[in-house]
Amino acid sequence: MTMAYSIMLAELLETIAVPDPKWLKQARSRLDILTKPPGSLGRLEDIATRMFAIRNGNISVSLNKAVYVFAADHGIVAEGVSAYPKEVTRQMVFNFLANGAAINVLANLHQADLTVVDVGVDADFEELPGLLQRKVRHGSRNMLYEAAMTEDELNSALQVGFEVAELAHEKKHTLIAIGEMGIGNTTAASVITAVLTEQPAAMVTGRGAGFDRNAKEKKIGIVNAVVRKHFALESTNSDPLEILRRVGGLEIAAMTGMVLGAAKYGIPVIIDGFISTAAAALACTMNPTVKGYLFAGHRSDEPGHRFLLEYIGLDPILDLDMRLGEGTGAVLAMPIVESALRLYKEMATFASAGISGAIT
Amino acid sequence: MTMAYSIMLAELLETIAVPDPKWLKQARSRLDILTKPPGSLGRLEDIATRMFAIRNGNISVSLNKAVYVFAADHGIVAEGVSAYPKEVTRQMVFNFLANGAAINVLANLHQADLTVVDVGVDADFEELPGLLQRKVRHGSRNMLYEAAMTEDELNSALQVGFEVAELAHEKKHTLIAIGEMGIGNTTAASVITAVLTEQPAAMVTGRGAGFDRNAKEKKIGIVNAVVRKHFALESTNSDPLEILRRVGGLEIAAMTGMVLGAAKYGIPVIIDGFISTAAAALACTMNPTVKGYLFAGHRSDEPGHRFLLEYIGLDPILDLDMRLGEGTGAVLAMPIVESALRLYKEMATFASAGISGAIT
Repeated sequence: MTMAYSIMLAELLETIAVPDPKWLKQARSRLDILTKPPGSLGRLEDIATRMFAIRNGNISVSLNKAVYVFAADHGIVAEGVSAYPKEVTRQMVFNFLANGAAINVLANLHQADLTVVDVGVDADFEELPGLLQRKVRHGSRNMLYEAAMTEDELNSALQVGFEVAELAHEKKHTLIAIGEMGIGNTTAASVITAVLTEQPAAMVTGRGAGFDRNAKEKKIGIVNAVVRKHFALESTNSDPLEILRRVGGLEIAAMTGMVLGAAKYGIPVIIDGFISTAAAALACTMNPTVKGYLFAGHRSDEPGHRFLLEYIGLDPILDLDMRLGEGTGAVLAMPIVESALRLYKEMATFASAGISGAIT
Repeated sequence: MTMAYSIMLAELLETIAVPDPKWLKQARSRLDILTKPPGSLGRLEDIATRMFAIRNGNISVSLNKAVYVFAADHGIVAEGVSAYPKEVTRQMVFNFLANGAAINVLANLHQADLTVVDVGVDADFEELPGLLQRKVRHGSRNMLYEAAMTEDELNSALQVGFEVAELAHEKKHTLIAIGEMGIGNTTAASVITAVLTEQPAAMVTGRGAGFDRNAKEKKIGIVNAVVRKHFALESTNSDPLEILRRVGGLEIAAMTGMVLGAAKYGIPVIIDGFISTAAAALACTMNPTVKGYLFAGHRSDEPGHRFLLEYIGLDPILDLDMRLGEGTGAVLAMPIVESALRLYKEMATFASAGISGAIT
C-alpha cells in the first residue's frame, strides 16, 4: 500500500466495527416467539436478524431506501471486448436521468431514491438533476498496455465512493443498493475475479452484454493477457488496491470506496451483479468486517459472479438469470429485505395472539 | 368421474382457453427494443411475457392484487402427524383476522387484499370482517380409515373455490395469490404428491411445522399406510377427483376449484408452497391448460414441493427456504411479478432514448 492513500484508508478501515452479537441473539429470540413454526420463514429470518444487528436494534422507523449508480468508461473497450460502442455509457446516463432505464422503473416502484454518479464517463455533462459529477478522468486507461489508473486517480475514485457514503449517511438512507454503468466493465470484473479467486479466465469471463461466441473467445484472450501483464508477481495479486489501480475501472473503485464508507456508517448495502460484487470483494479483502454490512441482491447470469459470491461468502437473495447491472438486481431484492424486517417488527407473538405452542 | 360433479366440472374445464400465442410473440418483440441487452432481464422477461399474454395485452391499468387463504382441519391429525394441536387452525384464523400473522404483514406491505375462507375449520365462527364462511364440514374425515370426503362434500369444497374465483373476477383482481392454513395438511399434500409423482413416501414427506426426527418417521409411516389403503388400484391413482376425495383436505379441494375458476376468468394465480401446489397439480391434471395461468411463488423447504413443481413444470420465482404456508411465499413473489410487468410497460426503447444498438 503506497503512502498516498494509506493514511486515509487505514483510518477508514479502522473505524469499521462488527455489529454487536447481542443484537443477533436478541433478534433470534424474538423470531422464535412470533406466530409461526420456528425457522419457517427461512432466509427471511437471517435477513431480519442481520438488518436488526446492523441497525443496532433501531428498526422503529421505516426504511429509507436509495440506489447509487456509478458510471465510467474503460480504455480496454478499444480492444473490441464489448458488443456495444463506448458511447452507450454516456447515452445510458442520459436514459437514467430521463427516467427511461430499467433501474428507473424499479427504483420508482420500490421507492428507492436514485442518484447517478459520474466517476469517469468519457463525455462532459452539463449540470443535471440527479447526476453527481465526480469525474476523475475521461475513462480509465487501457489495461492491456498500462495500469488503468495512477495512484492519484485511484485515490480520487475511492474518495468519490467515501463521499457518496457520507452523503447517504447525511440523507439518512437506511438501505442502499449499488449499481453501475460502464461499457467494457465486465472485462475488468473478469480480471479482478480471476486474480482474487485464482480461477482461469475461461471460467470467469462471460458474454457481458453481447452474444457472439467468437467475441467471447477474444474476450477470454484479453482477460488472460491482462492477468499475465499485471499479475505475474505475488505482491500485486494479493494487494486489493494494486488490483484496482491496474484494472480499474473508476466506477469499480468508487463502489469499493462506497462499500467501505457505508460499513463505517453502519448502513446496509445490497450489492448487485458481477461488477458491483467485484468492488465489494475488493473491499472485503481490505477488511473482512465489511461483509457484515452486505447483502447479495441476486446471482447474475455472468459466470464469474458465483465465484465472487463464494469468495465473499454471501448467498444471493434472488436468482433470476438477470445480467443487466445498473443496480437492478439489488433494487429488486429490496422488497424481500423490507418484508423480512416488517415481519420481524409487525407479527404477533404466540402469547399476544393466544395461540398454542408445539406439543412437547 | 361420478355424475354428481362431472357436469359442472366438465363445463368449467371446457371454458379454460390457452392464452393466444400472438400476445407472447408481441411481448417478446417489445422486450427486444427496450434499452437493455436482449434477454438481460432474464426470467423477468418470461414473467412479463406470460402476464401480457394472460391479460390479452391489456396491461394499461395497475395490478389489483389479492390473496385468498383457505382454512380447514384434517381428521388425520388424530394420528399425531403434527407438532401443533388442531386448535391452532382456529387460533390462526383469528390471528389472520386480527392482522397479526405473517401473511397479514406481507399483504399489507405489498398491497394485496386479504380474504380468509373457512372451508372446513373444526370450530364455529361468528360473522367477522375479512372471513368468508363457506364451511363444508367441521374438518375432513380421517383418511387412514375412510375417504376424507364424500362426493357431495368434495363437490361443495370445489364449488367454494369456483365461487371465490368468481368473487375475485367481480372484484377485478388482476393478480391472485393463494395460501392455506390447516394443521395436518402437509400430510395430505405428501399423500397427493406420492400418488401423482409416484415417489416413495420418504421422499415427499417433511417435518411440516415440527422438528422431531421420530415424528417424521411416524408421519412417513402414515403417508405410506394411506397410500396403500386408497391407491392400490390404477383407477384411483389417475383420477384427480378421486385423489382429492380420498385425501382431502377441504381447503386443498377449494384451492383446486379456485385455480380452475381463475383460469376460466383469465386471472393469473401465484401458488405458494407445498399444499397450494398440490391443489394446483390436481387442477393441472384435470386440464393441463391451467398451467398457463400459474406462477410458482417460491420453492418451499418441504421436500415434496420440488417434485410437484417438476410435475406441473413450473420454475419457482423465489427460493428462500420458507415453509410457513398462508400464501406467504406467493405474496412475497408479487413485487417481482409486478416489477417484470412495470419494466415491460415503462422502459424506454433504444429508438426513443437515442441509444446505439449492438455493433454488428
